[in-house]
Amino acid sequence: MKRKICVVVTARPSYSRIKTALLAIKNHPNLQLQLVLAASALLDRYGNATKFIEEDGFEITAKVFNVLEGENLTAAAKTTGIGILELSSVFDNIKPDIVVTIADRFETIATAIAASYMNIPLAHIQGGEVTGNIDEKVRHSITKLADYHFVASEGAYERVIRLGENPEMVFNTGCPSIDLAHHVKLQGELDFDPITKYGGVGGNPDIRNGYWVVMQHPVTTEVGSSRKHIEETLYAMMELNQPVFWFWPNVDAGADGTSTGIRSFREKNNLENFHFFKNMKPNDFLKLLNNCKGLVGNSSVGIRECAYLGVPVINIGSRQNKRERGNNVWDVTYDRNQIRNAAVQIDESARPESSNVYGGGEAGKIIAQQLSELPLIFHKTIAY
Amino acid sequence: MKRKICVVVTARPSYSRIKTALLAIKNHPNLQLQLVLAASALLDRYGNATKFIEEDGFEITAKVFNVLEGENLTAAAKTTGIGILELSSVFDNIKPDIVVTIADRFETIATAIAASYMNIPLAHIQGGEVTGNIDEKVRHSITKLADYHFVASEGAYERVIRLGENPEMVFNTGCPSIDLAHHVKLQGELDFDPITKYGGVGGNPDIRNGYWVVMQHPVTTEVGSSRKHIEETLYAMMELNQPVFWFWPNVDAGADGTSTGIRSFREKNNLENFHFFKNMKPNDFLKLLNNCKGLVGNSSVGIRECAYLGVPVINIGSRQNKRERGNNVWDVTYDRNQIRNAAVQIDESARPESSNVYGGGEAGKIIAQQLSELPLIFHKTIAY
Amino acid sequence: MKRKICVVVTARPSYSRIKTALLAIKNHPNLQLQLVLAASALLDRYGNATKFIEEDGFEITAKVFNVLEGENLTAAAKTTGIGILELSSVFDNIKPDIVVTIADRFETIATAIAASYMNIPLAHIQGGEVTGNIDEKVRHSITKLADYHFVASEGAYERVIRLGENPEMVFNTGCPSIDLAHHVKLQGELDFDPITKYGGVGGNPDIRNGYWVVMQHPVTTEVGSSRKHIEETLYAMMELNQPVFWFWPNVDAGADGTSTGIRSFREKNNLENFHFFKNMKPNDFLKLLNNCKGLVGNSSVGIRECAYLGVPVINIGSRQNKRERGNNVWDVTYDRNQIRNAAVQIDESARPESSNVYGGGEAGKIIAQQLSELPLIFHKTIAY
Amino acid sequence: MKRKICVVVTARPSYSRIKTALLAIKNHPNLQLQLVLAASALLDRYGNATKFIEEDGFEITAKVFNVLEGENLTAAAKTTGIGILELSSVFDNIKPDIVVTIADRFETIATAIAASYMNIPLAHIQGGEVTGNIDEKVRHSITKLADYHFVASEGAYERVIRLGENPEMVFNTGCPSIDLAHHVKLQGELDFDPITKYGGVGGNPDIRNGYWVVMQHPVTTEVGSSRKHIEETLYAMMELNQPVFWFWPNVDAGADGTSTGIRSFREKNNLENFHFFKNMKPNDFLKLLNNCKGLVGNSSVGIRECAYLGVPVINIGSRQNKRERGNNVWDVTYDRNQIRNAAVQIDESARPESSNVYGGGEAGKIIAQQLSELPLIFHKTIAY
Repeated sequence: MKRKICVVVTARPSYSRIKTALLAIKNHPNLQLQLVLAASALLDRYGNATKFIEEDGFEITAKVFNVLEGENLTAAAKTTGIGILELSSVFDNIKPDIVVTIADRFETIATAIAASYMNIPLAHIQGGEVTGNIDEKVRHSITKLADYHFVASEGAYERVIRLGENPEMVFNTGCPSIDLAHHVKLQGELDFDPITKYGGVGGNPDIRNGYWVVMQHPVTTEVGSSRKHIEETLYAMMELNQPVFWFWPNVDAGADGTSTGIRSFREKNNLENFHFFKNMKPNDFLKLLNNCKGLVGNSSVGIRECAYLGVPVINIGSRQNKRERGNNVWDVTYDRNQIRNAAVQIDESARPESSNVYGGGEAGKIIAQQLSELPLIFHKTIAY
Repeated sequence: MKRKICVVVTARPSYSRIKTALLAIKNHPNLQLQLVLAASALLDRYGNATKFIEEDGFEITAKVFNVLEGENLTAAAKTTGIGILELSSVFDNIKPDIVVTIADRFETIATAIAASYMNIPLAHIQGGEVTGNIDEKVRHSITKLADYHFVASEGAYERVIRLGENPEMVFNTGCPSIDLAHHVKLQGELDFDPITKYGGVGGNPDIRNGYWVVMQHPVTTEVGSSRKHIEETLYAMMELNQPVFWFWPNVDAGADGTSTGIRSFREKNNLENFHFFKNMKPNDFLKLLNNCKGLVGNSSVGIRECAYLGVPVINIGSRQNKRERGNNVWDVTYDRNQIRNAAVQIDESARPESSNVYGGGEAGKIIAQQLSELPLIFHKTIAY
Repeated sequence: MKRKICVVVTARPSYSRIKTALLAIKNHPNLQLQLVLAASALLDRYGNATKFIEEDGFEITAKVFNVLEGENLTAAAKTTGIGILELSSVFDNIKPDIVVTIADRFETIATAIAASYMNIPLAHIQGGEVTGNIDEKVRHSITKLADYHFVASEGAYERVIRLGENPEMVFNTGCPSIDLAHHVKLQGELDFDPITKYGGVGGNPDIRNGYWVVMQHPVTTEVGSSRKHIEETLYAMMELNQPVFWFWPNVDAGADGTSTGIRSFREKNNLENFHFFKNMKPNDFLKLLNNCKGLVGNSSVGIRECAYLGVPVINIGSRQNKRERGNNVWDVTYDRNQIRNAAVQIDESARPESSNVYGGGEAGKIIAQQLSELPLIFHKTIAY
Repeated sequence: MKRKICVVVTARPSYSRIKTALLAIKNHPNLQLQLVLAASALLDRYGNATKFIEEDGFEITAKVFNVLEGENLTAAAKTTGIGILELSSVFDNIKPDIVVTIADRFETIATAIAASYMNIPLAHIQGGEVTGNIDEKVRHSITKLADYHFVASEGAYERVIRLGENPEMVFNTGCPSIDLAHHVKLQGELDFDPITKYGGVGGNPDIRNGYWVVMQHPVTTEVGSSRKHIEETLYAMMELNQPVFWFWPNVDAGADGTSTGIRSFREKNNLENFHFFKNMKPNDFLKLLNNCKGLVGNSSVGIRECAYLGVPVINIGSRQNKRERGNNVWDVTYDRNQIRNAAVQIDESARPESSNVYGGGEAGKIIAQQLSELPLIFHKTIAY
């Protein structure tokens, strides 16, 4: 009988990050994939991932609606509570052999608690990283609940071991998101028109001389400043006066501050060089990145995939503070001048070298193989 | 303005363990105590702690009912989810400056998540210990969510630091439960009749030549065997044929297995030497222990308070597997012969030496003082 | 394709009441039964119905644990809230064509809300009755959510119509519980020994000269008096000094008052003539009733099945206050003397006539047939 | 001691409707107002009512976030379940003497269940009305849970009595929303510039020759058609080519269909005559209505306040199907031609007569007075 591997995806970006692992699990002769979609991954206003996932040929085993609306931290806590209630029912129904949770978004701990409290072996992807924000509490807390760890870099590997995990259960597989980047790098050119293919709203800039991509999320510990922070980036890019493809932020306490800031800025300014997207197929998004002048914002894509692709990144603020990085990153604060100056510098510099710091393009397959072979355990003790 | 310190107590034994800290917080000139009672601490069939708490002079700020009934692990997960929903409402209402969570019962992580997700500084009491069961996942997971750590032993101190916590936020205060034991040790003799004072059910044994105390909880990772395990202890103590005071177990997945085992055994056997209690005031319980021949079961009281008191303990099975211990512990497996033989040995041996391994009797005051002085932080990063 | 009929059973007595309808649905060529077990029907301490149901040959489609523990009314409200959360997930998964809810226990409104809010046609069994307690708020409230009504008596039929329901959707089918009584009446004699077959606890009375059956539930609006009320019955039956088979109460706010009252009374009195059961197969229970001297308490079984069987009933207090009744009922208040006197009178009287006031023994089949033919609607308006 | 009257407001329009009653309760010498804000009343994207309420001088006793995000009916059911969980905690904390629930939005039944299950007397405002949609299930179901009924019209009064309620507990007070309309009618002219005062988005039409107001909500039983329905209205008003003030819809299953429809239409068409608002102070909104050419959509404001004000209404579709109405209503289906033709007719007709069908302007005071005098009951039986 095949092992049932239940992967819980709670946000669109997590899906892209994990896609090659999903594919490898689905295609593995000894594994059966149970894909559960939850939280903002299901919501239109944060870029519902359902369609992309189905187009990629995956079947969705269960959908869990658990986002409690309300722009505040209490709602984030309650969303997590509801997530546990709902996910434990799902696990009861589909009886997975292993549950997989991804990274460090606040609601992923619901997956970890439901699985570990129900004595289901738990695998965690992308533990051990350092970012210096609330995500870090969540991430390391999940590490201490998880039985298997698939980490993305050497530094992460060492940290998970230092956190007291059994070294036999920790694997530096690289990040599955790099697998996609690897594929995209081989493909090269931007072979589609983003606006024609994805709609979105805003101007229709001429991108023949290049374009920028912006993706900036609110930072949980800086909720009150979300709007001010996004405005600095908006001003910087408006003043730069070059084509911009802008992506809406994830749901998070503070997302409404960011979204409202963008919406209000659009009403008041003439942004003909800006076009806004909610979502893009992961592969297309990476192609868009691979061919852009640079990525602006605080997405981890800038630190990971862009390192592998050798795409310049203007990394704003504290969100990626402590992540290992390649040579492709320009770090700046929430300041329109710093942002614009970095863009000007990048425009004048050569493209950075590619880096393998987050993996070499085979993470999905390695993870699937491990999931098929690892002993089924849900009982552990600290290793010191 | 006084700092508001919210302590969430989720079980009767946690209350006894923390009582001196509660008192020290209540009496501290710069602190205001907010005492929240939740989970099994409120339920009659697990020894409702409300009455004891009120008799001790504490006011209960809020009560949270979150135990979902059902003898299974899914109910434990859901109880935790409901706990988050409810506690986040409570914190919203009473706006604590610091939240304190105790030890490692499964539902305590609800306190930790609600507080940390709401950016309220979180203190954890009794982190860093090693037990080798599901509690350990919970305990270390809470450590990674907590901002301050009040640990009970040198080993725990070192482990919390190795888990990547900032050493400036980790304090080996000893366990507040030892404070009570310290007090009781000074008092000496058993100065009340347990059955007269606490009722309970069962026979009325003659204890002039000594008595045993039994307290055995189900083990989360061995749910299916709860009944068999308790029966071994029941047979051992019946065959020993000496007076026994037996305490009902906590609520937990598996509690019903344990409870049912006891109830059924009582129906079928003549247990005139056994008397059963649900609950006892902490102080009286420690006096009962201080004067008994030995404690039988798997309660952490055997490892901690009994070490300080120098009371012999027959520690059964895996639950206290890896805790540091004094010389007072006889470790046995779930086997009636081993249990009975240990009892016979203890009967023939001298009383063990007292040990300070879990503190020297001032933990409550030290914790309260720290809570009044520590910087209010809810933002941290791993220390390596 | 067969119509999927989802019946949600939330308590052991509801199961017995509905059993013949379940059987008729299961055996109907155009229907597929989806049996969902929830609330106290799953809990050991209220007589887990799972085993009986499976022995009767039914498959359980889903189990919903939603009982929040706590002896108070808030817990009853929250149990209902959790019920809605859980049942809506279940309905999402199993996509019933019609949902069936039974009678008027507080948690049944969760079934009604989940179904009607999800635009699933809702059938209600046993609407339109009058009892004068909180059940009545629940019952009529469900009527206003339901699309089809299968009522048990002429009075109930008229009341549901007066409540503004479309007469074409209201059917006086009689109560399915009478179907079982019909069967049992044909069988006659008590052909098993209750204690041998069902265990339980207590004395082993000699029943050759007859026995009484007691079943008394707490009354939601009289929570504070539960214990006092049950004690009156306990004293009355002890003083009567005849064999008694006593059944534990349902879970309800106040159940613990009732249960505690019984437990405590047992400890203090010598009750050799009493034997206590948690549960009995419906068929056996009816046989036990059919051959007893009389039923004592406030169960609706006394009003319904016993009317058909012609068994005398001492109906205590307000719980069945306003239900239509046959000639078999002696109404008394919570008073040990009234109860004992009624028992003495019954002992001296002839057995009452059988009555068809709650149906003639074919309700299950009629309900199944209607469920297979009714138009699928979930949209209605008041009929005046 | 003053009676504590807890009013639970779950949506911005409910607040306007009830405002004069809130004021009368607040100012009544024997009453203390406890105002609880819940559900969409708290959410920015549905017109957060918090600011308006505080500006009106009310203190908010508790806020309850219970909207589970997800464009589907399951989320509506779950929102109700969470509402019960949260509201029962609130009632536990603030211990109201009477709880007041308003009208018939799906989530209002959570208020009704929490209060009635906790034995708190429940008052219902605006029961007894007929609309022919899911609201009607909710509304009449709440009537059967409520102890006091404050209805808004003669027809509603008769219906609540026929539903079996005790006539001594049913009062035709008129609708409190008419109290505001009464006040506004006395004030007359539009004395503010809507766009200057409220911002919003869209064109800046010249309204000196009059303007229309549009407010169209999704219909729960027609979820799949929300977008198509709103588009007919959008086309009709665009073709009419007169100034339009358009209000965003409430949160509801289907709201996203309506909102998306509007957003998408705006992107594709040049709507210089349209201006969009999220929200307006109730008083200003009524002034805006009182001076408009007509109201278009399916809001109950058209049936109630506009009857009293004598403002023409183009009532679209089934939502207000069966409500009593004055002479001010033109009923049309979801058809752009019918809508436009009605507008042309209205433009050419005289203004309709005022009507007292929903009250005479004193409802708030009458309700407050009743709440101060009524016996505190929570126990009832059907009146036939």
